[in-house]
Amino acid sequence: QVRGAPAIALLGCLSLAVELAGGAGPSDDLGALEEFVGQKLGFLLSARPTAIPGGSIGDPRGEVGGWERSQVVPGIRLSIIEYIEGLLEKDRRDNRNIGAHGASDILGRVPGGGPVTLLTHCNTGTLATAGYGTALGVVRALHQRGSLSRVFCTETRPYNQGSRLSALELRHDGVPVTIIADSAAAAAMRERGVQAVVVGADRVAANGDVANKIGTFQLAVAARHMGIPFYVAAPSSTCDPTLASGRLIPIEERPGTELTQLGGILLADPDVDVWNPAFDVTPHELITGGIITEWGVFAPSEVCRAL
Amino acid sequence: QVRGAPAIALLGCLSLAVELAGGAGPSDDLGALEEFVGQKLGFLLSARPTAIPGGSIGDPRGEVGGWERSQVVPGIRLSIIEYIEGLLEKDRRDNRNIGAHGASDILGRVPGGGPVTLLTHCNTGTLATAGYGTALGVVRALHQRGSLSRVFCTETRPYNQGSRLSALELRHDGVPVTIIADSAAAAAMRERGVQAVVVGADRVAANGDVANKIGTFQLAVAARHMGIPFYVAAPSSTCDPTLASGRLIPIEERPGTELTQLGGILLADPDVDVWNPAFDVTPHELITGGIITEWGVFAPSEVCRAL
Repeated sequence: QVRGAPAIALLGCLSLAVELAGGAGPSDDLGALEEFVGQKLGFLLSARPTAIPGGSIGDPRGEVGGWERSQVVPGIRLSIIEYIEGLLEKDRRDNRNIGAHGASDILGRVPGGGPVTLLTHCNTGTLATAGYGTALGVVRALHQRGSLSRVFCTETRPYNQGSRLSALELRHDGVPVTIIADSAAAAAMRERGVQAVVVGADRVAANGDVANKIGTFQLAVAARHMGIPFYVAAPSSTCDPTLASGRLIPIEERPGTELTQLGGILLADPDVDVWNPAFDVTPHELITGGIITEWGVFAPSEVCRAL
Repeated sequence: QVRGAPAIALLGCLSLAVELAGGAGPSDDLGALEEFVGQKLGFLLSARPTAIPGGSIGDPRGEVGGWERSQVVPGIRLSIIEYIEGLLEKDRRDNRNIGAHGASDILGRVPGGGPVTLLTHCNTGTLATAGYGTALGVVRALHQRGSLSRVFCTETRPYNQGSRLSALELRHDGVPVTIIADSAAAAAMRERGVQAVVVGADRVAANGDVANKIGTFQLAVAARHMGIPFYVAAPSSTCDPTLASGRLIPIEERPGTELTQLGGILLADPDVDVWNPAFDVTPHELITGGIITEWGVFAPSEVCRAL
């Protein structure tokens, strides 16, 4: 019922906080509490292989283990709840900072300082995060400054997060938005004056390669061909310095039925072979705009070191 | 009920032949017969703006007017029917020649001479032509030679001709086929060993620019980035020497509901703005493999002159 790596992580953690507040788990044995919390979060961390383990929630097992052994267990339970509530606020605050840094950087690159026409992929907004959004946070920030002409949202097959979710939440906020087929992105860059592409990220490797929704690589190739800056917007927690290159990021492959069926309607021969990777890796050299974090905009190859 | 520029043209002409064979139209006045045939074909020629007027059927008004004035009208009626039946055979024969030329050219470029892995877009097969197909004719020819490892078919949103039609007809013929989201094409080139891309065409301008299904331009950009040859397969009748450049080809824009609805299911906010061009133009310099016609494979900038 929930999607978007930050939203999944935060809702999972908040659910744990609700459980703890309701009295679930051990109340007098610190070791047993650590095990209880670790088990719950371990399940959450294993839910999607491509997103960085922890991501928005840091390494919660480390956090839990880090509380003072001398604290009484009820106090520790309360600390965990407060820590989790803090994650929610931190995600919203980080997204607003991402939006501000991204908007300024884009306006600084556009002749005349805007207003600009953007293109984005998938959904990275209020329906994928604690609120505001990462790439859609940049879109919102530009709109709030009166500096957005229009944003093109790709449909984002096979789950249609662009047409179903991004277009919906942007229209709700009065942002001028147009949806296009994924195939029409390069044509939109050429024929409709797209000036920059901004997408989210599921994991950033140490060298700045980015795993994100399938189709991101293709958009980056098209943007470079058209001479349009390509930005990735993501909180610093998305960076994974333990992986030297994007080639090491595991890519989740999902069932072929996502492409052959829709709401019970058969879209193709149900026995046809399907290759349905949910993500792809964009090499750092194609991220020509930079990686927008809550700390500022960085060159992809420097982002992990700088953070 | 019919799609694919050659199939639309041929079915329209064959329907006229059936009408004529059944006694429709004037039987004694040559001028009235010319007008009757011209009116029927004129409607057909105006059906889709992007495909070259005439295309597979040549300029039928010229053909009709070209018959000897001295022929008796019933004889002329029979000649028109035979001419139309000939178009059907010609399209099949041309497609087989396209397949043979394309297969040889591709195998000549691949290290070791194959078998090869291809990627194609939309549907250009028996369900779009009189039979065999253009780009899918090349796929079939390679398969018949035992030189095809696999062909990847893009879904081809918003009408899904790749997943619905190409995958169906290729599986029917025992050709190894895998469907992918349109977004996954560049990833398939990189991760699944695609060695060449072959697509069809709706119109080829004098300079070799090609109008084809939306997404073709993006595939050509991705193929060039990956260093994979990009081929266009089309009968010589697709070439339009009257247009100097692809920028002059009219691009049909279709209703947004193709993206926001599917079989009665709402896929997006029905009031959202949609840009839905049915075709795009691929500049000739990206057609690195060449244009495959029934006469052979040509460099894009030379194809119109050579033909």
